[in-house]
Amino acid sequence: MADDGLLTGYEKEDAELWLWDDLPELHMEVGYRINRLLHFERSKYQEISVAETAAFGRMLVLDGVPQVTEKDGYIYNEMISHIGLLTHPAPQHVAMIGGGDCGPSREAVKYPGIKQIDVVEIDPRVTTVSRMWFNPNQTLEDDPRITISHEDGALWIQKQQERIDVLLVDRSDPYGPAAVLYSRAFYKHIYTSLSYDGVAVFQSGSPFFDMKGLKRTRERLRALFPIVRTYLTTIPSFPGGIWSFTVASKRHDPLTASFDKLPLETRYINASIAKASFELPENIRAALR
Amino acid sequence: MADDGLLTGYEKEDAELWLWDDLPELHMEVGYRINRLLHFERSKYQEISVAETAAFGRMLVLDGVPQVTEKDGYIYNEMISHIGLLTHPAPQHVAMIGGGDCGPSREAVKYPGIKQIDVVEIDPRVTTVSRMWFNPNQTLEDDPRITISHEDGALWIQKQQERIDVLLVDRSDPYGPAAVLYSRAFYKHIYTSLSYDGVAVFQSGSPFFDMKGLKRTRERLRALFPIVRTYLTTIPSFPGGIWSFTVASKRHDPLTASFDKLPLETRYINASIAKASFELPENIRAALR
Repeated sequence: MADDGLLTGYEKEDAELWLWDDLPELHMEVGYRINRLLHFERSKYQEISVAETAAFGRMLVLDGVPQVTEKDGYIYNEMISHIGLLTHPAPQHVAMIGGGDCGPSREAVKYPGIKQIDVVEIDPRVTTVSRMWFNPNQTLEDDPRITISHEDGALWIQKQQERIDVLLVDRSDPYGPAAVLYSRAFYKHIYTSLSYDGVAVFQSGSPFFDMKGLKRTRERLRALFPIVRTYLTTIPSFPGGIWSFTVASKRHDPLTASFDKLPLETRYINASIAKASFELPENIRAALR
Repeated sequence: MADDGLLTGYEKEDAELWLWDDLPELHMEVGYRINRLLHFERSKYQEISVAETAAFGRMLVLDGVPQVTEKDGYIYNEMISHIGLLTHPAPQHVAMIGGGDCGPSREAVKYPGIKQIDVVEIDPRVTTVSRMWFNPNQTLEDDPRITISHEDGALWIQKQQERIDVLLVDRSDPYGPAAVLYSRAFYKHIYTSLSYDGVAVFQSGSPFFDMKGLKRTRERLRALFPIVRTYLTTIPSFPGGIWSFTVASKRHDPLTASFDKLPLETRYINASIAKASFELPENIRAALR
């Protein structure tokens, strides 16, 4: 909480409330005018707030950092989920580390073949608050296939042994508490947790602002997995817009996956977009060679 | 010039200089820390400045609004140019309205078949300042195929009759002086200016923030041209990242164009990216249907 009694990141200007997203590595700041602050609380782990922004509708904010918004959250959720879920030809057991807003699990339930969906989110309040403000009418938690574990994902993964067909790693940027989700040890535990033909998908950062980070993720995964592929999408509320995800797979190659099973009920992704997302611009292709 | 003696958009904070890009329709503000203000002047038409930003390198700023940056200008320039230049099988006469930084013409000169390149930019100082700070060592203006006309593009186009094979309309957003570049009359003059199999490419805005504007552009073009196609790319320094361009063509369809002639010397676009850029997300596809 800041000195003026406001939550981190929020500032009053004249009669208006603004949220300021400070991007120190980029020496940029992005300000969003807030119509209404809908919710705020301090959980055991962090400040959690939900703000109604003029630009992106409702926005989940943790410790002053925007996480997911009403107007573009579906792009992130669909793009992190379906590529991995369709790269594996018949996933039965899927898991998500992070995804406390349950966005990716809302995509996974669309596949009738999936029998078990584990969501691992350390902070139970994130799950509750997200449900309350983003999906009040969807009783996703009633789907008997979903189990939400409120644990540290880096510890949870160590207890899984060749059990998971598709794992989605919805991690935040490699600073502070999330740094462990970028370590060699974490990737090794993931390898072990996956079934013999398992697939993992990682949020792997901005190729425009942090090519080094993306390269590091890929190198660490290539030391373990025979197939490592990066794909791109655009998330309007993320700085720089262009964003990368990386697939690590023991056996199935996303480049030959049947994305034709799309569209299920989706707003952003379709079979052509899924395929096209693996086409990389010249300079990114060269940097990753 | 603002009251404090600084140019529009610039503010001093402690010892730091920042440029604030105000996006009133989005109720957002984006701030860039400026390492050095390299150039500023007031031309007959506007305030022109060049700032060295921490995030995007050198940035051309007109009346406080970022136009093009060193670190991502190539994406815009390549994506507005090559799709149109390759949709036409053998362009000889090409023209650019706007493009005072000469970015698109730097792409056009890569095609030996092109015999004439007209650049129409109302403000001669934009051309001079851009050359000075962005391409000091490239003597593009010495290429005898290029003619730069310092005129109003909306008037210039009325003097062209079935002369242009490929026209690139590098217009700014549909406010103020650029509004005329979105009018029915302007599109009609463009139709007349193009040769019997001519192609025009328009910057057509953010499909995320201004779908209405994109639809209007397409409707007006469809009233004139048999082939109208929208493609997308991501420009990191543009709000929301995702950006649209629209091709209007009398005869050649970009969906069946030979993009295999790429890559020429490019940093972003290649044949796969060119093809993939026409794949639209579900919601954009539905909105444009």
